[in-house]
Amino acid sequence: MMYDLIVVGSGPGGLKAATRAATAGLKTALVEKSDIGGTCLNWGCIPTKMFLGATAASPLLHTQVKAKTVTGSLDFSLPSLVQKKDRFIKGTRSAAEKQLISLGVDILKGTAAFSSPTAITVTNDEGSTEVTFKKLIIATGSMPSAFPGLEPDGDCVLNSSHVLTLTEAPESLIIVGAGAIGLEMGDFFSRLGTKITIVEALPNLAPSEDPDVGDTFRKILKREKWGIRTGEKVQSLKTVDGNAVLTFESGETLTADKALMAAGRTPASQELNAAAAGIECVGAGWITTDDHLLAAENIYAIGDVNGRTLLAHAADHQACYAVDHASGKTTAAYESGPMPACIYGHTEVMRVGPNTAELQKAGHTVETSTAMLVANSIAQSYGSTQGFVKVLWVENKVHGIVAIGHGVSHLVTGATIMVKQQWSLKDVHSIIWAHPTLDEALEMALIAPRKPA
Amino acid sequence: MMYDLIVVGSGPGGLKAATRAATAGLKTALVEKSDIGGTCLNWGCIPTKMFLGATAASPLLHTQVKAKTVTGSLDFSLPSLVQKKDRFIKGTRSAAEKQLISLGVDILKGTAAFSSPTAITVTNDEGSTEVTFKKLIIATGSMPSAFPGLEPDGDCVLNSSHVLTLTEAPESLIIVGAGAIGLEMGDFFSRLGTKITIVEALPNLAPSEDPDVGDTFRKILKREKWGIRTGEKVQSLKTVDGNAVLTFESGETLTADKALMAAGRTPASQELNAAAAGIECVGAGWITTDDHLLAAENIYAIGDVNGRTLLAHAADHQACYAVDHASGKTTAAYESGPMPACIYGHTEVMRVGPNTAELQKAGHTVETSTAMLVANSIAQSYGSTQGFVKVLWVENKVHGIVAIGHGVSHLVTGATIMVKQQWSLKDVHSIIWAHPTLDEALEMALIAPRKPA
Repeated sequence: MMYDLIVVGSGPGGLKAATRAATAGLKTALVEKSDIGGTCLNWGCIPTKMFLGATAASPLLHTQVKAKTVTGSLDFSLPSLVQKKDRFIKGTRSAAEKQLISLGVDILKGTAAFSSPTAITVTNDEGSTEVTFKKLIIATGSMPSAFPGLEPDGDCVLNSSHVLTLTEAPESLIIVGAGAIGLEMGDFFSRLGTKITIVEALPNLAPSEDPDVGDTFRKILKREKWGIRTGEKVQSLKTVDGNAVLTFESGETLTADKALMAAGRTPASQELNAAAAGIECVGAGWITTDDHLLAAENIYAIGDVNGRTLLAHAADHQACYAVDHASGKTTAAYESGPMPACIYGHTEVMRVGPNTAELQKAGHTVETSTAMLVANSIAQSYGSTQGFVKVLWVENKVHGIVAIGHGVSHLVTGATIMVKQQWSLKDVHSIIWAHPTLDEALEMALIAPRKPA
Repeated sequence: MMYDLIVVGSGPGGLKAATRAATAGLKTALVEKSDIGGTCLNWGCIPTKMFLGATAASPLLHTQVKAKTVTGSLDFSLPSLVQKKDRFIKGTRSAAEKQLISLGVDILKGTAAFSSPTAITVTNDEGSTEVTFKKLIIATGSMPSAFPGLEPDGDCVLNSSHVLTLTEAPESLIIVGAGAIGLEMGDFFSRLGTKITIVEALPNLAPSEDPDVGDTFRKILKREKWGIRTGEKVQSLKTVDGNAVLTFESGETLTADKALMAAGRTPASQELNAAAAGIECVGAGWITTDDHLLAAENIYAIGDVNGRTLLAHAADHQACYAVDHASGKTTAAYESGPMPACIYGHTEVMRVGPNTAELQKAGHTVETSTAMLVANSIAQSYGSTQGFVKVLWVENKVHGIVAIGHGVSHLVTGATIMVKQQWSLKDVHSIIWAHPTLDEALEMALIAPRKPA
């Protein structure tokens, strides 16, 4: 069978690519070896958001109990939360599948491997089939990294997929990795009463953000009684006598009911037989792409697997470009524009565009202007006043915005537009800012005095 | 004493005007007869937001209890909530006063009345003082309307100020008026266990919004067991034997522990002796202003009192213009640009720009495109999936955006920019939309098929 376009992988990038291609009239196939929706829907963004949304009352209440405005207690049922999440995911998966079928996309279940630069073999329990393509988009995504000595065993040492299937909240949980996954899962389990210890090899929490984001996160989590160990390398993480035991390189150990490995992602390119199509990989298998997201002639790689940006919406954006380029609608080089990224939970991080270090590395002189959330009436109304919004300026134009605090992910679309359009102070005054809103903290940051970064 | 600029009233408009003028070097006085901060800070937006923020856990929990993911109970302490609110308001007031003083603004406590077109008399318990001005800004705001037969008595029939001082939640509450104040206070008291009945003379809840907003609100509130009476006129509202008794024009009566009059606002212009300055008022006393917000030579009227838009941020925006015009920094006519407006609570309304009827009245052919929140993963995560985002298009440009549902006020800044910049579909694709966010419902609405309004 010959397809105009084959998409390998059905995460946010692959799904978008397949639907866009089929809508544009291309004869399209989508290859998926596991569940439609990929990591984002099944084991990533969506399940964590379902957990965080369903339990959002807990930290709000906790804050008010401290403020003595309320008494009461909550007892979440993890089995019910898991069931509710699974039901939603199953429904979404089924809706996505139906949409693909209604658009005429052939869904090929199995593992894809290149047999030549113009053909792949799809292998499943029933055997192998070769299909050929005019164009192909690799959208196989990424998987949790496995580090020697820290391999999740599914018993007491869990990866981010295992942890979503727990039916009982552990008394204590060690989390290795203080990026989005670690911080979000820690927030969720702390709502269920789990004692959290987070371990990060780098010096800061949320290590890809400006250090002051990490500092603020540390203050907030300390107050919430998290154990925090940063700048310390882990030597091993094992199940020992029914407990998770972490050993630092220093020899010190930590013990907890469970441990979650949430450090690093590795590209899902191993099974592709990429060399057969002349595709180059670097490092752990990240697929090298050119300015048009091409990994080889007529073969694109989008999303996590090309290592550019490990975010669902980056994959989605690249998918649109790749389909448009494949169908001749654009010949321009791929440009992502400013990338938004959020960490969700009761305390959130929102960033659009590069951080200070990245801007400085690109040769820019950076100024920053900041507003603290404590001066914002909506932050005050929730009693969650720790945090800030910071604007990064280059030559009087907004080049980046970062925020930490309760609810700051809500600022993301406005912030994305401002960075994309490189707003000046005049633009800030071009709109009426609604009152009272958390957004006014962003306005205050935009108009605050600037200082050199 | 002669001032470059006198500002009468210290609500959001007056405060902004005084600080902006003083910062620009004008010799400035601010006259206030009551509390610094006006209605917004003391009896309006801020206290209601403090109440809604502090109790936000309640409806989130309620939703999850229904979904059987949690058991538990809450008992809010209204005295503590009132105390917390009062403490915040007092602190904010004090901070505002200190800032004014540090900027060199003279705060004149008392009631202002024009004695001539260039002088006012400020009267307080200690007597009267005449002060003269080069320019003056009236920013006296508005008050709850009093209708004959429905006058709040502070006993069982309350206005929006009385209701903020209750220390015990009534068992039952009749709310007259289904605009922002009525809906927000109803949401708050329902969280404390009060049985709410809302009464609106117009056919729809949220009557200044598109009718489908009102329809959705009705569905949601019915499910929450509110009594809803729309399209029925009230003849009287009285305290009778320790209860609030509402009588419809039909003769039917409703009885509750308390009633809240939340219908209509009336301009606070009565005490100004406006005629002495040659200022014209219409209707209940709304001050007539020209294209430069001038009510008479060198005298501006901003905010609620000019009747243009009864919103804090409208006053703030007009304040900036009036000070700039008064100090010669602009000579252009005042233009507000698209106005954002929100109703807050567990179910929120967000609107930017005119509604469909207003656009059609202006001669536009309107198309709409809509996305339902039920398809949004963040709405799903909270279990609050009723609602929608609707975009109003004129000639393929965004002219208005309206939304109803949990959390939709968070869309306001992005929406304001889109309406202000009259986005086309191309602009929608110019940014990367973060995933997963409620904002994606706005994106879906923007790219959805359009149909004639």
